Amino acid sequence: MSRPHSALATILAAHRGGKLRITSKLPLRSRRDLSIAYTPGVAQACMRIAEHPEEVRRYTIAGDTVAIVTDGSAVLGLGDIGPRAALPVMEGKAAIFSTFAGLRAFPICLATQNVDEIVATVRAIAPSFAAVNLEDIAAPRCFAIEEQLQDLGIPVMHDDQHGTAVVVFAALLNACRATKRSLRTLTVVIIGAGAAGTAITKLLAPHVHDCLLIDSHGLICDARSDLYPAKRELLAHTNKQNRCGTLADALVGADVCIGVSKPGIITPDMVRTMTPKPIIFAMANPIPEIMPDLARAAGAGVVGTGRSDFPNQVNNALAYPGIFRGAITARAPRITEAMQIAAAHALARLVSRPTPEHIIPSLFDPKVVPTVARAVARASRAH
Amino acid sequence: MSRPHSALATILAAHRGGKLRITSKLPLRSRRDLSIAYTPGVAQACMRIAEHPEEVRRYTIAGDTVAIVTDGSAVLGLGDIGPRAALPVMEGKAAIFSTFAGLRAFPICLATQNVDEIVATVRAIAPSFAAVNLEDIAAPRCFAIEEQLQDLGIPVMHDDQHGTAVVVFAALLNACRATKRSLRTLTVVIIGAGAAGTAITKLLAPHVHDCLLIDSHGLICDARSDLYPAKRELLAHTNKQNRCGTLADALVGADVCIGVSKPGIITPDMVRTMTPKPIIFAMANPIPEIMPDLARAAGAGVVGTGRSDFPNQVNNALAYPGIFRGAITARAPRITEAMQIAAAHALARLVSRPTPEHIIPSLFDPKVVPTVARAVARASRAH
Repeated sequence: MSRPHSALATILAAHRGGKLRITSKLPLRSRRDLSIAYTPGVAQACMRIAEHPEEVRRYTIAGDTVAIVTDGSAVLGLGDIGPRAALPVMEGKAAIFSTFAGLRAFPICLATQNVDEIVATVRAIAPSFAAVNLEDIAAPRCFAIEEQLQDLGIPVMHDDQHGTAVVVFAALLNACRATKRSLRTLTVVIIGAGAAGTAITKLLAPHVHDCLLIDSHGLICDARSDLYPAKRELLAHTNKQNRCGTLADALVGADVCIGVSKPGIITPDMVRTMTPKPIIFAMANPIPEIMPDLARAAGAGVVGTGRSDFPNQVNNALAYPGIFRGAITARAPRITEAMQIAAAHALARLVSRPTPEHIIPSLFDPKVVPTVARAVARASRAH
Repeated sequence: MSRPHSALATILAAHRGGKLRITSKLPLRSRRDLSIAYTPGVAQACMRIAEHPEEVRRYTIAGDTVAIVTDGSAVLGLGDIGPRAALPVMEGKAAIFSTFAGLRAFPICLATQNVDEIVATVRAIAPSFAAVNLEDIAAPRCFAIEEQLQDLGIPVMHDDQHGTAVVVFAALLNACRATKRSLRTLTVVIIGAGAAGTAITKLLAPHVHDCLLIDSHGLICDARSDLYPAKRELLAHTNKQNRCGTLADALVGADVCIGVSKPGIITPDMVRTMTPKPIIFAMANPIPEIMPDLARAAGAGVVGTGRSDFPNQVNNALAYPGIFRGAITARAPRITEAMQIAAAHALARLVSRPTPEHIIPSLFDPKVVPTVARAVARASRAH
């Protein structure tokens, strides 16, 4: 008997009952087992931690468990779908932390989108965790939340910002090697001034010639009266000549275009106005800002996307497992820019001879997580 | 080669790295695996839940994951040791939920002991969970927190109160059968007016002749000027003759004494003033209010304790896995008194012929959780 079995049915069947297991590491088959894991023996572990608070890292899940915290306001390409509909993404992320980095992770989906309430909630639940991965929280709220939580004593990182920025930086390092460019000389156009675009801009700007940032109203320049504070701040790092105009205007003479925005908004004609063999990362999901074949036909030297079915998948899952693993191992109180830069260089070095079709390692390369983690831990200790 | 290996070393070694595993149910070995569990496929599960919010129970961990929430203020016999030192207990509880009831559970240890902040935090994190087990929160704070959260839409139960009360009720039902008493006729003295004592009193009072409640200043009676509101309320349910006095005064002519208080405070002489063959549950941990052999020598008919090394272990782990399993299966919005009474009767019935040495089933009886769960689910649907 055959029955129809669509991709949707496969996906929903896989999600049935949730994607995570939470189980006991210890057997609980006898009174003796219980007397060790639970009363009365557990009191010994409690007293040990009460006397030596830092040992909570050694004797509990708080040693390496990541809270994946979202308010469900900017989920994948789906937008503000709320905390419950966001849960499958957070579970997927927790599954990746477990499988790829050997970390425990648990999804915390919040019934509030208020900055103060989110900050207060994360502070309240922090004792159970070793780190906090903020996820899929809309800009500009995500900036304030992340900033206010930097004093928590454990790493707090908004992955949509910094995980993405690290992988883009790594990809750009190798795209330069593949096209014999120097990072210092690049003019980089970044499309999308939300969480990812802002973080990419901040991470790249000190290392390239200039960044030009585009939002839905065009180039971010001094003359704009519609910029919220987080965007206005970016003027200090970008657009040295204070150019105003459209995306098409910005791309003229640019070396690199990084899209974290909307499907199809880069045209082949725009690519032709860039420097020869430009670097294009078109990362809108699932449909890129320009399809790779179109971009290459228009002269692009290197093309990356967010998709697994094209070469050069610029995917933040390359970064966050190793970044958190390294920060937690080093017991870093926060994840600094230096740690992010170190992660990007480590990731880039994993491709020994970058070519236009191969600038970034595979997610399934077993060296990715330990290499990134080591670099992050080392950078943390160096500061 | 032999080396010394103390009980402490065994316990600490067992706690090393925490007691819970959080792992992926799905393999993540290929791009296809990732495209189902994570992007882009996961978006299908998200959209399904966005369109049909109730399906979050079917397609995510929120279908059966219990939050074990504590502020670390009343942990075991250790008291206010804080959220970090409380974590091993909460992990042990999560391990029991997983092993005995097939439920996922995750410990949320809070960096606040403020009622409003605890309530706000639980409300904020609720979307990830199917139920909330409040744990080891001191009285009277625990009463206000539990009460304010009853409108959350998922079961919220303070186990130190109601889990304990259910098991005591079950044990008392069978102690009556074993000593040929009728519940309706009993005068019950309850020592300890904290979380457990209060809940035991409220659950038993409608079913027995009278309850007399003792706190550290003696019998709770109308003449007392030192009673906080939650204690004063109990006067409506207890002490019909409004007796004042000491523990010794209260026990004269009583049929039952239930201790959830301090080691050694019941003397053999006190037992001798009770009715013949009285029922004594001396549940202080690890050292009971009176040791079983002393109580029996003084004429006790049935003796229970909280300990596994004596007969009749009155342990709330007999109740909470089944209560939460049943409430979650029935999608009950709260755990009512009727559900608790149903759980107690189901637990009692598992011992077909109670004797003074055997009034309560073993924790390891595989029928305990499903039997309690079925009774709780049925009682939930009946209301």
